[in-house]
Amino acid sequence: MGEFELIQHYFAAQAAARADVELGIGDDCALLNVPVGECLAVSTDTLVSDVHFFADVDPVALGHKALAVNLSDLAAMGAQPRWISLALTLPKADDVWLTGFTQGFHALAVKHNVALIGGDTTRGPLSITISAKGTVPAAQALRRSGAKAGDAIYVSGSLGAAALAVQQRIHNLPINSDALRDCSFRMDYPQPRCELGLALRGIATSALDLSDGLSGDLMHILRASGVAAEIELTNLPIASAVQRSVTPEQALQLALGGGDDYELCFTVPAGHETAISELAVALDLPLTRIGTITTGEPQIIWYHQGKAVELHINGWEHFHHGEAGKTS
Amino acid sequence: MGEFELIQHYFAAQAAARADVELGIGDDCALLNVPVGECLAVSTDTLVSDVHFFADVDPVALGHKALAVNLSDLAAMGAQPRWISLALTLPKADDVWLTGFTQGFHALAVKHNVALIGGDTTRGPLSITISAKGTVPAAQALRRSGAKAGDAIYVSGSLGAAALAVQQRIHNLPINSDALRDCSFRMDYPQPRCELGLALRGIATSALDLSDGLSGDLMHILRASGVAAEIELTNLPIASAVQRSVTPEQALQLALGGGDDYELCFTVPAGHETAISELAVALDLPLTRIGTITTGEPQIIWYHQGKAVELHINGWEHFHHGEAGKTS
Repeated sequence: MGEFELIQHYFAAQAAARADVELGIGDDCALLNVPVGECLAVSTDTLVSDVHFFADVDPVALGHKALAVNLSDLAAMGAQPRWISLALTLPKADDVWLTGFTQGFHALAVKHNVALIGGDTTRGPLSITISAKGTVPAAQALRRSGAKAGDAIYVSGSLGAAALAVQQRIHNLPINSDALRDCSFRMDYPQPRCELGLALRGIATSALDLSDGLSGDLMHILRASGVAAEIELTNLPIASAVQRSVTPEQALQLALGGGDDYELCFTVPAGHETAISELAVALDLPLTRIGTITTGEPQIIWYHQGKAVELHINGWEHFHHGEAGKTS
Repeated sequence: MGEFELIQHYFAAQAAARADVELGIGDDCALLNVPVGECLAVSTDTLVSDVHFFADVDPVALGHKALAVNLSDLAAMGAQPRWISLALTLPKADDVWLTGFTQGFHALAVKHNVALIGGDTTRGPLSITISAKGTVPAAQALRRSGAKAGDAIYVSGSLGAAALAVQQRIHNLPINSDALRDCSFRMDYPQPRCELGLALRGIATSALDLSDGLSGDLMHILRASGVAAEIELTNLPIASAVQRSVTPEQALQLALGGGDDYELCFTVPAGHETAISELAVALDLPLTRIGTITTGEPQIIWYHQGKAVELHINGWEHFHHGEAGKTS
């Protein structure tokens, strides 16, 4: 058995058991039981060294993040996370690195009760492709195409912190160490909002996760739904570490165009304000109304204290997001 | 939209429609309908440049092969192929290369009626991860663990041709041009035996696909099933192009240890000889009995014209298979 086969056996030993895994790692395919009445939801993401993460990233953080960005897609669909395939390409079998990567991966897998059901381990330039699989009844799936005029637009958590950590890393910005720690944690350990996604079944008319920055990501909902949006900039939940560290203009750029937030943006029909407030308390997660869906060509109309304003979003700069073509 | 996003849209336009795709490319996840009473079967394979294929390989062949090796895993499980996720990492967006890759991929996808339902396109060192998904009733799945003493052992098609093409490519062996063309085609265009896998439901007690060479691959069945095997070497269906081109000893090494055959090896209970013969005719695919499962510790006992022989299999050399840890 080669060292890369051994790695796979090591991962297999870590794989959590789930009753819906008919056959796990070790055969030509895994066999999985999808509940009757539910769709299989599948998302695939590749992270490449020096493109999606710094080559010297802590492997614990990388193991976490590689899984987190895929679970985030399931969350955005309102899907119950169940199973993970991991394709890991490594320049060499480095024990310390592998132990760290597995630790980060495994901790998040346990937290969300997902089982590693297969994959491939190969020698080559460092890259990670994860396919996350969950299930959701088709009628309750949170698609991008269901937003209607009059719906309220919400985002979870806070925005801009991960993007600021990326900028600090590149430009060595003079940022207070407490704020930097907060932002770096948000960059390295995004938290997939799976519970929120499940709770939004039957409530939200559309949803997606914020990976490239709110302004661009919200446009996906607007185009898929054939609607426009009005956003009040003063309502944006910009992370306090960002507000403390940069100018208001820079903070807006990071929150709207910075990326890597992995929060959910979703729309709900008018009249659900109380339900959403209660949900925020139950999940201990801020859910902030930032605007309203309107009729019209897909576009975002920005308001500042109720007054329409022009806004040119460049996200400071589009580091790490220039050329990705993620579709599901 | 970046050029890599455009690629994804290009692939999306090629994606075949299937009635069981509730939601295809373009949302956070694809949504898929698994038939009631069937398991989801999932296999993931990564192909890395210079590890699994020559960097200058014809992109048409690469598009074919990347999909074929995954469909081969579904075939080995007796699963009906349905859906494909494609994670493609490319150094640059090269029109000619992409057109070729897509052509090879698409032709095989159409042949097996599988729909591309998502993935990721990223800039980085050339590598391809495909996750193939199909379905099979759990009780009919062709696992590795069901072989019983007395079962006949079969392989489909012929063995050794792809491995000889690899050796020729490395060592510039003096091989007749007709034979080389046959072998190169087997290396570049493996044919996943999906119809055979489906037909073996309810007949075969175990199965797998031959990717690393019969001797090593058969051991996976023997270990999973807790049985031994007796193989008659003169019954091995060594490809005629191989028989014509190298010594009998070299031909054996290629057939047993060479890899890249992507034929099925399967076991059936005694008494099914006629059914298998009829199946071979119906599929126009040789199905050759090469031996018998016996009780005992997992091992292969080799026979030559009925006489037990010692055999040291090195597969000529293990090019392209040294460090892969494929598990499902």
